[in-house]
Amino acid sequence: MSIDDVIEIDQNSHLGGSGSVGLVETHQWTSDVPLMLDCGRTLSPITQVYETYGQLSPQRDNAILIFHALTGDAHAAGYHERTDRRPGWWDIMIGPGKAIDTDRYFVICANVLGGCKGTTGPGSVNPQTGAPYGLDFPILTLSDMVRAQERLVTHLGIERLFSVVGGSMGGMMALDWALRYPDRVASVVAIASTARFPAQGIAFNEVGRQAIMADPDWRHGDYYGGRSPEAGLAVARMIAHITYLSNTQMHNKFGRRLQDRDQLGYNFGTEFQVESYLRYQGNAFVRRFDANTYLYISKAIDYFDITNGKGSLVEALEEYRAETLVVSFSSDWLLSTEQSRELVRALQANGVPTTFMEITSDYGHDAFFLPNPELSHAVNRFLANVSNPVTPRSTAA
Amino acid sequence: MSIDDVIEIDQNSHLGGSGSVGLVETHQWTSDVPLMLDCGRTLSPITQVYETYGQLSPQRDNAILIFHALTGDAHAAGYHERTDRRPGWWDIMIGPGKAIDTDRYFVICANVLGGCKGTTGPGSVNPQTGAPYGLDFPILTLSDMVRAQERLVTHLGIERLFSVVGGSMGGMMALDWALRYPDRVASVVAIASTARFPAQGIAFNEVGRQAIMADPDWRHGDYYGGRSPEAGLAVARMIAHITYLSNTQMHNKFGRRLQDRDQLGYNFGTEFQVESYLRYQGNAFVRRFDANTYLYISKAIDYFDITNGKGSLVEALEEYRAETLVVSFSSDWLLSTEQSRELVRALQANGVPTTFMEITSDYGHDAFFLPNPELSHAVNRFLANVSNPVTPRSTAA
Repeated sequence: MSIDDVIEIDQNSHLGGSGSVGLVETHQWTSDVPLMLDCGRTLSPITQVYETYGQLSPQRDNAILIFHALTGDAHAAGYHERTDRRPGWWDIMIGPGKAIDTDRYFVICANVLGGCKGTTGPGSVNPQTGAPYGLDFPILTLSDMVRAQERLVTHLGIERLFSVVGGSMGGMMALDWALRYPDRVASVVAIASTARFPAQGIAFNEVGRQAIMADPDWRHGDYYGGRSPEAGLAVARMIAHITYLSNTQMHNKFGRRLQDRDQLGYNFGTEFQVESYLRYQGNAFVRRFDANTYLYISKAIDYFDITNGKGSLVEALEEYRAETLVVSFSSDWLLSTEQSRELVRALQANGVPTTFMEITSDYGHDAFFLPNPELSHAVNRFLANVSNPVTPRSTAA
Repeated sequence: MSIDDVIEIDQNSHLGGSGSVGLVETHQWTSDVPLMLDCGRTLSPITQVYETYGQLSPQRDNAILIFHALTGDAHAAGYHERTDRRPGWWDIMIGPGKAIDTDRYFVICANVLGGCKGTTGPGSVNPQTGAPYGLDFPILTLSDMVRAQERLVTHLGIERLFSVVGGSMGGMMALDWALRYPDRVASVVAIASTARFPAQGIAFNEVGRQAIMADPDWRHGDYYGGRSPEAGLAVARMIAHITYLSNTQMHNKFGRRLQDRDQLGYNFGTEFQVESYLRYQGNAFVRRFDANTYLYISKAIDYFDITNGKGSLVEALEEYRAETLVVSFSSDWLLSTEQSRELVRALQANGVPTTFMEITSDYGHDAFFLPNPELSHAVNRFLANVSNPVTPRSTAA
């Protein structure tokens, strides 16, 4: 769910050269049609910010929708400016000749509803008051976010997607899309994901929210224009960040090494490298993310359960038809291989063509943000072999 | 490191009946002799609060020192009042006929230096100012706490302990004692412990400290007499509490079940049982614990590394001689079985008689606070078989 870590990877091989989508633009689309939300309220207008890479085929059958994770945005690949120090958050996977090959596919990525990177969220102006929504913004589910993006896809003239792809929260949204719009997608790639967010994950999210809400600068969400609850948000981010790394990775990367010193300082300042790293992560995050959005999206993740009101997981997936690739990482303890296996078993019980792979990795939950030949190869090969019969809903009905 | 969970266990079988040490008193001892600390500062006076159970033998060779964990205290067994709703934090293990049998052993448990349960800590009065120390209290190590307790043991007229026993931080202190005073202990029981606190643990502790220090009521530690940083301390506790439970346990205990409701509330209140449980844990904790003590003790844990300045772990344990029982729990992911195995290998490489057992349990790190026949049996049998040659330091020298 993190994108800060990509800066640690050597991006030179992608810097505007072969394999890069190059300079890209962010688009936005606003609709005044009210969207009915799971909570019972409606929302309008809704602005969605998105980027696209590659060309839509004349048959309009090569579109892949990428869903970002908790703290992501629409900028999945390429560069906004020639001077950008780093590309979009999944540039390692998206581009000409890459796993998600923009020479073949038309790739779309939109900031989710509730976000803080251009799409309507709690920091947007409430037309009824002329002030930012704050906590007047309705509570969202991942399904609400998916429904908003369905409108965007339709707006772009695409009836049926070739694939929906995502990691972590993005994988959950991909599953939701496939279940909600079975006629409108041929395949799903769900990485480091789950069919129902687990209790331990809810626990970590809740503590993060408590940290934000305990910050007096939060002011019940009404902080826009004033001091934002940076201390609370930084704590929330640090908590979450630990869950994105593996124990092995932390041990190898930091161990008990001290930061910029030879011996213990005997004070409460930064002493260990792991402390320095976490504080950096927390401080970097508050500069790019809105605390209320963190509350809303983490809550939506907690709510995610494919089985909601639908009996068992096998029963809940009865309408699911898309060919599916499920990928887990061996050291991911937030959304573990067991979570993926549970999903795979339920898909297979429904006769869904399902490919599963557990990738051996020390990089924990966030492994999908990092270059991984196995992941790239698996996604590329899976997409190349998707049977894509053109059965748009209009003719199938 | 938690003691709140014991309330969830049926304690009826222990309530003042067979196996209970019954009503107990808390003692205190104050020494004006300055204690030299690892940080280079000295501390005096030092008051230590402790309890004892059972009778010291005429030979003074049956004393067992119990070290408590991060949030524990001296009240390890029995009851202070007949109306107490629950006994000391390790009453399941300590009492007549129990694993640590008070019919045979004289058991001592003291609140650690830096604590908030009677022993001198950051909330104590600084004799130089007449006001509470706050952050003027020196940074401590677990070795400092051990050295303070060595004085207490000497004060009680005990030259050599039959055993030092502890779980989590208590196990680390037991290891430190055995290494620091090899002539003054016959055996060690280290449960759910480690020879060096790992990076991931430091990370969680650091985030907890950040949460406390981000609370404006913390006032750089100078909050005594005013509002205490309850919100920050509650967040720290909630973070830590998640690490004390296993994923399986959380899944089985809470899953995605809602609290006191049939359907999602679509608000940021308590909805899931796991949220309710964590908030309860956080709120209960702030009523019984001091935020500065949490900072100091968690920091001391972070500092714990048997190898500090001593080369490899095998080299660091060269002076270690005490027969040792190491116990881990299969679902403990904070101080995992691998941590225990690393310790065991290094002890065995030094020819230390070492018994190791991994207990299969779903209860995570905190499993040692819960009744467990395997643990009780292992500790009881280990203590019964300790060879206890009387070689006090004075004759051995």
